[in-house]
Amino acid sequence: MQTEDTKAPLLWQKQGVEVDPEIQRFLAGEDVVLDRELLPWDLMASRAHAEGLGRIGLLTEAEVAALCAELDRVAEEVAQGRFVLDARFEDGHSAIEARLIEALGDTGRKIHTGRSRNDQVLVATRLWLRDRLQRLQALCAAIARVALRRAGSEMQLPMPGYTHLQRAMVSSAGMWWAGWAEAFLDDAELARASRAWADANPLGSASGFGVNLPLDRDYTTTALGFSRLQVSATYAQLSRGKFELQALAALAQALLDLRRLAWDLSLFLSAEYGFCRLPARYTTGSSLMPNKRNPDLVELLRASYGVVAGAHSEIEALLALPSGYHRDLQFSKAPLLRAFGHGLAALALVPALLESLEWLPEAMRAAIDPGMYATDRAMELARSGVPFRQAYQLAATPAPGEQRSPEASLADRCSPGAAARPLLDRLEARLDGMEGQGP
Amino acid sequence: MQTEDTKAPLLWQKQGVEVDPEIQRFLAGEDVVLDRELLPWDLMASRAHAEGLGRIGLLTEAEVAALCAELDRVAEEVAQGRFVLDARFEDGHSAIEARLIEALGDTGRKIHTGRSRNDQVLVATRLWLRDRLQRLQALCAAIARVALRRAGSEMQLPMPGYTHLQRAMVSSAGMWWAGWAEAFLDDAELARASRAWADANPLGSASGFGVNLPLDRDYTTTALGFSRLQVSATYAQLSRGKFELQALAALAQALLDLRRLAWDLSLFLSAEYGFCRLPARYTTGSSLMPNKRNPDLVELLRASYGVVAGAHSEIEALLALPSGYHRDLQFSKAPLLRAFGHGLAALALVPALLESLEWLPEAMRAAIDPGMYATDRAMELARSGVPFRQAYQLAATPAPGEQRSPEASLADRCSPGAAARPLLDRLEARLDGMEGQGP
Amino acid sequence: MQTEDTKAPLLWQKQGVEVDPEIQRFLAGEDVVLDRELLPWDLMASRAHAEGLGRIGLLTEAEVAALCAELDRVAEEVAQGRFVLDARFEDGHSAIEARLIEALGDTGRKIHTGRSRNDQVLVATRLWLRDRLQRLQALCAAIARVALRRAGSEMQLPMPGYTHLQRAMVSSAGMWWAGWAEAFLDDAELARASRAWADANPLGSASGFGVNLPLDRDYTTTALGFSRLQVSATYAQLSRGKFELQALAALAQALLDLRRLAWDLSLFLSAEYGFCRLPARYTTGSSLMPNKRNPDLVELLRASYGVVAGAHSEIEALLALPSGYHRDLQFSKAPLLRAFGHGLAALALVPALLESLEWLPEAMRAAIDPGMYATDRAMELARSGVPFRQAYQLAATPAPGEQRSPEASLADRCSPGAAARPLLDRLEARLDGMEGQGP
Amino acid sequence: MQTEDTKAPLLWQKQGVEVDPEIQRFLAGEDVVLDRELLPWDLMASRAHAEGLGRIGLLTEAEVAALCAELDRVAEEVAQGRFVLDARFEDGHSAIEARLIEALGDTGRKIHTGRSRNDQVLVATRLWLRDRLQRLQALCAAIARVALRRAGSEMQLPMPGYTHLQRAMVSSAGMWWAGWAEAFLDDAELARASRAWADANPLGSASGFGVNLPLDRDYTTTALGFSRLQVSATYAQLSRGKFELQALAALAQALLDLRRLAWDLSLFLSAEYGFCRLPARYTTGSSLMPNKRNPDLVELLRASYGVVAGAHSEIEALLALPSGYHRDLQFSKAPLLRAFGHGLAALALVPALLESLEWLPEAMRAAIDPGMYATDRAMELARSGVPFRQAYQLAATPAPGEQRSPEASLADRCSPGAAARPLLDRLEARLDGMEGQGP
Repeated sequence: MQTEDTKAPLLWQKQGVEVDPEIQRFLAGEDVVLDRELLPWDLMASRAHAEGLGRIGLLTEAEVAALCAELDRVAEEVAQGRFVLDARFEDGHSAIEARLIEALGDTGRKIHTGRSRNDQVLVATRLWLRDRLQRLQALCAAIARVALRRAGSEMQLPMPGYTHLQRAMVSSAGMWWAGWAEAFLDDAELARASRAWADANPLGSASGFGVNLPLDRDYTTTALGFSRLQVSATYAQLSRGKFELQALAALAQALLDLRRLAWDLSLFLSAEYGFCRLPARYTTGSSLMPNKRNPDLVELLRASYGVVAGAHSEIEALLALPSGYHRDLQFSKAPLLRAFGHGLAALALVPALLESLEWLPEAMRAAIDPGMYATDRAMELARSGVPFRQAYQLAATPAPGEQRSPEASLADRCSPGAAARPLLDRLEARLDGMEGQGP
Repeated sequence: MQTEDTKAPLLWQKQGVEVDPEIQRFLAGEDVVLDRELLPWDLMASRAHAEGLGRIGLLTEAEVAALCAELDRVAEEVAQGRFVLDARFEDGHSAIEARLIEALGDTGRKIHTGRSRNDQVLVATRLWLRDRLQRLQALCAAIARVALRRAGSEMQLPMPGYTHLQRAMVSSAGMWWAGWAEAFLDDAELARASRAWADANPLGSASGFGVNLPLDRDYTTTALGFSRLQVSATYAQLSRGKFELQALAALAQALLDLRRLAWDLSLFLSAEYGFCRLPARYTTGSSLMPNKRNPDLVELLRASYGVVAGAHSEIEALLALPSGYHRDLQFSKAPLLRAFGHGLAALALVPALLESLEWLPEAMRAAIDPGMYATDRAMELARSGVPFRQAYQLAATPAPGEQRSPEASLADRCSPGAAARPLLDRLEARLDGMEGQGP
Repeated sequence: MQTEDTKAPLLWQKQGVEVDPEIQRFLAGEDVVLDRELLPWDLMASRAHAEGLGRIGLLTEAEVAALCAELDRVAEEVAQGRFVLDARFEDGHSAIEARLIEALGDTGRKIHTGRSRNDQVLVATRLWLRDRLQRLQALCAAIARVALRRAGSEMQLPMPGYTHLQRAMVSSAGMWWAGWAEAFLDDAELARASRAWADANPLGSASGFGVNLPLDRDYTTTALGFSRLQVSATYAQLSRGKFELQALAALAQALLDLRRLAWDLSLFLSAEYGFCRLPARYTTGSSLMPNKRNPDLVELLRASYGVVAGAHSEIEALLALPSGYHRDLQFSKAPLLRAFGHGLAALALVPALLESLEWLPEAMRAAIDPGMYATDRAMELARSGVPFRQAYQLAATPAPGEQRSPEASLADRCSPGAAARPLLDRLEARLDGMEGQGP
Repeated sequence: MQTEDTKAPLLWQKQGVEVDPEIQRFLAGEDVVLDRELLPWDLMASRAHAEGLGRIGLLTEAEVAALCAELDRVAEEVAQGRFVLDARFEDGHSAIEARLIEALGDTGRKIHTGRSRNDQVLVATRLWLRDRLQRLQALCAAIARVALRRAGSEMQLPMPGYTHLQRAMVSSAGMWWAGWAEAFLDDAELARASRAWADANPLGSASGFGVNLPLDRDYTTTALGFSRLQVSATYAQLSRGKFELQALAALAQALLDLRRLAWDLSLFLSAEYGFCRLPARYTTGSSLMPNKRNPDLVELLRASYGVVAGAHSEIEALLALPSGYHRDLQFSKAPLLRAFGHGLAALALVPALLESLEWLPEAMRAAIDPGMYATDRAMELARSGVPFRQAYQLAATPAPGEQRSPEASLADRCSPGAAARPLLDRLEARLDGMEGQGP
């Protein structure tokens, strides 16, 4: 293996062409660091590519075996932190080829037969994306599970319902939870659908025009667990950024819901609302004001959407290009990795946070004022035959001596999806169904 | 019916509360104009709502019949342009109720029993969205069809393949078409998946907390053709903007592909490339320069993505809110309608444009220079046993006296998805399958 | 004048070239409607152009006089609503030329000498932009004035100060107002600086390459009140979208501040805070819930930023182009006009809204709890020599029997910019200075 | 100094409150790494704060001297890479206080008197921003200088002028350069104006409500070289993100121009245009195709705008908040640093790149076809009295035997800002004036 201070040669370098280090630095950017995350997938795809070359006779069985063994060895070293991509290499793709040549000589020099680095980055990113979308689905489902469980047990716990931040109607903690359960259930479903959409094998498209070799692309499709081949060689390049944007769109939905959920918590945790409490580990203090305990985590969860929005804009700005590969597309990597890294870390904290949330029922009950029964009254009048638009006028003022309780209001709320008939079993069935489907 | 100069009363107006016209104008915004597009769906949902009220005994059979007949009448007047929403009404929802009251008196005053305007806007937008996504799917499929047909017949027509806008390898018109075929096929598929994701009935969630009436939401779900109930009453509000954003994400994918396709055409139509011609009806002239015929339509198709990107940003900016309805959400309507209006109009022009594209084969062939065979050569060497990395060095310079033709290069391009083995039948099968699925 | 049903001929139309109405409709888009807003500026610039042609002998004095008189006549008709751009014309530029030819024959046919429609749209947009930025500056200054006046009179009115939506320190209504005063003062200043940046005359650049006529561009610069010539003919085209984006950036700053201000009001108007009241004309009711009065206007003001954000994204998406004019750039017009139309309308409502805001001092005072004096205590300890980090620990708990009032806390708050030393005169001086500078 | 494995205590930590490491990791994020870049400015501001405390008697002269000496020492260690912020510290602010306490005991414990970490991050970011905008201005001016110099020497070098990517009129390399010169001159001017706008001292606003100490804010304003005090304590918080967004808007303008410039180069470097050459150090090869030399640097410069667009979206998404500090705002730091880091690195490569650009005059001349003289002809006819609209029709076809040359066309192009009268001295004077103004 090369020593730290030896720079690996550039794959494409030609005799006598000067290479300016400052320009190379800008060209490489943070590629090597980013490729650390993609490297396991690049190794996995390289293995499938080697096997594929074996199947069409471009490599002998022994060569395939040697390449696969060495690729497995690198994968293990990567997993153990003994192989670290660093600035010696132009990128992860070059590093793999350099390592194989170092270890296997001419056999290593054959690994790139019929493929390009575009092939490598496309397939590694696709495999990575599939994995991250599966993780996104699992996290959203986990959040939905917590919310659903609490919805079930807190359906009759009175809570004011707001529209326009104004007190509107009696609601319940369980109805609040049920909303989030269905929201994150849909987010899980979108993650699943987006993964299915992107689950196509680009390996074997070379530079976007194919090659004069009968590559066994159906084999690599199966070997890598893709559900279909991305057929057209030119489309492989055209799809750079496409699947990334939809993956971000799915991630964004979860983080938009998290933003709104965190907004609720931020209000509920204020002195003015005082509806709930979080364990101290979720709060921090002020460097100046001794009295403060701030719900910083909730605020950073709320702010996390921004990272995804930014990544989306960043990639979107790149795609105003003619067809074919352009180096501009390299810049789609950093925002994608950044957004999923941050977004999934944020979502991973949410189930435990929601589990730990403790309601303060007296405060919630105290915030239910008499005006909030007006709609109940109007419906009762309508039920008794008063045309609704007239009932609406009559219901604005309570009957003298009228007594109503939040509990009674909730017990009467019998429209499907409301407190007296929440239909949580339907949500549970969808959630079970999705998880039953497997990856 | 009210005369032009009578302003319909506000549904919620109370005695003695001053209403400032300038403020009302800002509040109403362009709502009445936007609601023109949603009105047919609002009427359809109102019909289902009336029937649902009948099923739970809130309306008599006669009342249901009267309401449905009048709603049908309005729908017909709308279709014929005889009923036009204008500034007399606060919005389309108020207009429907006002009309029913005008025509049917107390029966009309019952239509709003158990529903809110939030219900109306949610369900009407959802129905509209479902329709537009179906249209998006159909347009993308139509574009894919044209591209697929031309891919089939032009697979051996030589064309230079570019990466970095530099001449890279021999390609073909057919390979270029195949890429677009698969791209728009995927776009059609995403439109379908996004529609399936959003295909849930929000009607019956009232203001987001349900009501104390046993609304028959499963009935309205079936009557309106939704594939499932949006269960939780609070989630109905939380989903405002969510489905809209994903619908825009699907539309954006098609317009991103169109942007790249238009970029190609813009280059190919330049004097420098000169690869193709479009009929004169797709071009315009200059007011100053007598010599110009400009491909303005191609440029506006390319620019159309911006409208969708803008709409996405506009809606995204609204969703930093706690749960529950907020008036901010009203502003999601205009960008959504604008983006689909513009985007679908752009896509609708594409099939005929692509049909009419005429290649200039000599120019395409003339742009294929000898260096573009180097990769072919490198693969041949690799096939003969030279390790690829060495073959890469050797292939840079042609053998003396070597003769190669674009046709031969294409005939040898046998990797799946390349010219000699394009697998167009797989794309065709996916396209057929999607259309076979029905709406 | 042409009758409604006659379509004006296209300026660039050539014999025998078919024009497809559907394509023309897409090409023209809403141009004619948008150009209504730009028309007065286009007429003004056409007048300067005619005079300029007179100064270099391309038009006789009589021709200049005739053209100017007719342009003035059209301007008057436009102002009175008697001349309305409609679908007879391709755009406003064509309409002006058609009208001059209709009225003046060959003299009208000379107006376009040495200019292009690009010239026209560039100069008309620039003049319009200058006007709108001046209006933006004036509105921001008006908001700052109201805030500053109320800051002065309410500096000692206690109000809780929040960070993280948690109660932090005693603050005052006046301090709250002072923050908004300085914010909108800065916004006014940015509007001014952005106008100065864009205040350059593009007229006379023709299609971006100049012409073989000695146009008197310095004359038109002076005649149109520009502060400098936009020198390079090619830069005129390159600047399409540039100045628009900075104008939107300035508008966005004001609407971002408005978003945060509206957020405050939305909270303060909730039952949980209950800090203030707005006149009923700023609120609306619910169609379903009889009890509601919602602060819809405040919410729509908060949401208005989205329109500007969307417009920014929409224009930004267009600018990934090589140099020179491209039809894509036409699509910068609609978002620009939409954003300023909406944004300025929103800002125009703010001064009166702020004037009418009525505090509820008891509620504000009741929300000040004892913990909020801890920082005061810590500073007193620090003043007496206790190292701050130690004082911070000690101050967390009040001394037994300690009595503190919000008023005393405010009276001691003597750091510059705090309640006891607000330095409002400095803000006033900046505001006066800016207004003194004139347009 | 603490050893690597000791974690510094949290400033605000209280006895008995559990701190979860995973949550702390999410809360801290990459703050420590980001603060490395802000640390020198934080140290500078801490020095001014210490001196300010001395001036109002809160610190003795000896204490001020000790603090300043230690802060200088840290600054030196930072400059030499001997003090590195790492995960021992919550953030840079805590690190400075911890170091001062470690070195100076109780004197160190006094540094935070009257300030908050919000003060620190606000003032450090503002100082950093001022510096980066100055660098942005200098880089834009440097690009403008190169373009201006080449404009002067290449004004008569014929080049085709394009609109819609179609050949339009004869232009020149010098006219092309002049456009970029004025574009980057305007960008430099916007950087200057944006810096002036943000050049206000926030230090001394504490947590946004001031303190009960007579801080000498005018002193720190002068000591830190700010041109004015940011007066209102509440506005200091409200401005978080505001100045950042305008700084990004200024940076974006330069990168938008760079995007369009790089687009031109990307086309000119293609085989189809073939107008210019770049030294080999600006290009790279392909791993697969032996024949390729790709203009990767030009493409990455073109793509660099995306980083700024993403950062803008990311910060914008955070600012939907009520007034007062919220932890969400912490997330404005990473995108700001990322965008300026990347953007300035990209711009820094441009002057040398432009210097090294070599035209291929024959190819440029060959791309000028006869139709491109039509506008010249039309103007000549107009000059001779033919009404322009008629001249336009006549000029479409050349007179029989007509001979025209690009050089003659350029020599006649006498409108101000065109080849025969480019007025480059005006651009030079503006550039000199801006640089004469100093920082």
